[in-house]
Amino acid sequence: MFERIHDSFARQLAMAHLGARLTAVRDGEVEIDLDYDPRLTQQQGFLHAGVTTAICDSACGYAAFTKMSPGSDVVSVEFKVNLLAPAVGERFRAIGRVVRAGARLVVTQGEVLAYQGEQSKCVLLMQATMMAITPRPSL
Amino acid sequence: MFERIHDSFARQLAMAHLGARLTAVRDGEVEIDLDYDPRLTQQQGFLHAGVTTAICDSACGYAAFTKMSPGSDVVSVEFKVNLLAPAVGERFRAIGRVVRAGARLVVTQGEVLAYQGEQSKCVLLMQATMMAITPRPSL
Amino acid sequence: MFERIHDSFARQLAMAHLGARLTAVRDGEVEIDLDYDPRLTQQQGFLHAGVTTAICDSACGYAAFTKMSPGSDVVSVEFKVNLLAPAVGERFRAIGRVVRAGARLVVTQGEVLAYQGEQSKCVLLMQATMMAITPRPSL
Amino acid sequence: MFERIHDSFARQLAMAHLGARLTAVRDGEVEIDLDYDPRLTQQQGFLHAGVTTAICDSACGYAAFTKMSPGSDVVSVEFKVNLLAPAVGERFRAIGRVVRAGARLVVTQGEVLAYQGEQSKCVLLMQATMMAITPRPSL
Repeated sequence: MFERIHDSFARQLAMAHLGARLTAVRDGEVEIDLDYDPRLTQQQGFLHAGVTTAICDSACGYAAFTKMSPGSDVVSVEFKVNLLAPAVGERFRAIGRVVRAGARLVVTQGEVLAYQGEQSKCVLLMQATMMAITPRPSL
Repeated sequence: MFERIHDSFARQLAMAHLGARLTAVRDGEVEIDLDYDPRLTQQQGFLHAGVTTAICDSACGYAAFTKMSPGSDVVSVEFKVNLLAPAVGERFRAIGRVVRAGARLVVTQGEVLAYQGEQSKCVLLMQATMMAITPRPSL
Repeated sequence: MFERIHDSFARQLAMAHLGARLTAVRDGEVEIDLDYDPRLTQQQGFLHAGVTTAICDSACGYAAFTKMSPGSDVVSVEFKVNLLAPAVGERFRAIGRVVRAGARLVVTQGEVLAYQGEQSKCVLLMQATMMAITPRPSL
Repeated sequence: MFERIHDSFARQLAMAHLGARLTAVRDGEVEIDLDYDPRLTQQQGFLHAGVTTAICDSACGYAAFTKMSPGSDVVSVEFKVNLLAPAVGERFRAIGRVVRAGARLVVTQGEVLAYQGEQSKCVLLMQATMMAITPRPSL
């Protein structure tokens, strides 16, 4: 399972473009870390909501993926985020957790924590639905 | 208004990092374009949902911004997206539109269209709440 | 199709308990009407958000149902609503529309309009995912 | 605080119409109970999603209300629900909890548990934004 997720994450080139790293894979829970980068900001210098959403979506997606059968792949069906505070910090951690795993749909919750020195705060809260798909076999 | 939005967009460095361009600003409606870039993909080679969400969030945010008073700035409160189809195409357009502008909260709807040759299809649907804030004055 | 939806609506006893009526069924679009009733209010005398959500959820669900195969039934997977204005009016109309119909998942948008004399305004905006299920056969 | 919330709940006539009872008010957390009632069902005999949403919206709203200043009232800005399982059970409990309380906006999470004998399961997950408003004084 872990290898399958690390392989898939490595093929998510958007994660590399953002500088995100897969830092923990547990059964039903995945963490993705990201350092602050001024190239990822919105107009006030905070991390852009699309960036924190991207790492949280991947964390939730891979958390769901830990519950799916080996032959399947995962896609996001939908997600909703609340932005609780400006994404200010030295580094950020997205945590995705499975809430309920159905046969095809997996419901997850995610959050993004911002770390500044010894302090951390939650800046984003996500509720997301992921779906198992059967990839078309390549010849 | 147009200048204010172009200035703010230019300060959203995340948009430049993704290669996104502000292509239309109308009263209550903003468009942001993005060319396909393999560096922005998820594991299946489609644009990552975080990327299409990022440009749609900015389009909705700036659409809301057209309804806000000159001294204010805009932040995203929350958004929800449905991913309607894989983000496959040569180029993408996010369109954000104001549905209701209150004194502080502005509700918007957004979509992302994927273009392939002459064809286009909607790949993402967003419903988002934006808020006017008063930036702290710099000394 | 119309008969199938009218039959199903008649079995949604919650709709009768709220006083809601199925008033239009078109391919991919369904309308449900509700008169103001003081028993359905929240603490300020407006219709409770749960009530406007309930009729909009049913309208979106049945709009999705028009796209599903005869042997299936419909359930709500998830929905998100923005409450645009207090639900004040003499009568209310929920309209659900299909945005994209997949094999099992159908994405819909809905709204609730409040009517007061000649005037109407949109008080609720919904984005919802519906799913086709195969009911267990009864013996 | 408790009295203020019990008074407000008593004025939410929709809660009485559904048969819902306010069963716990703590700082930042509110519970609302509801017994199964065949009049509140959808076409398959489960509780209608609008009904479980209604009690969860009220639970989240009043949880937010515990964090608001005495002179204010609370309204729902938006919410998103995932329906995790059919709402089957003898009784149901909605629990709303404050995640972050801002000056005007309060973000909450809610869930609805279904009880059948000794067993309980989560059937609905909510993420909601509540707003403090200043009611217009009556003369």
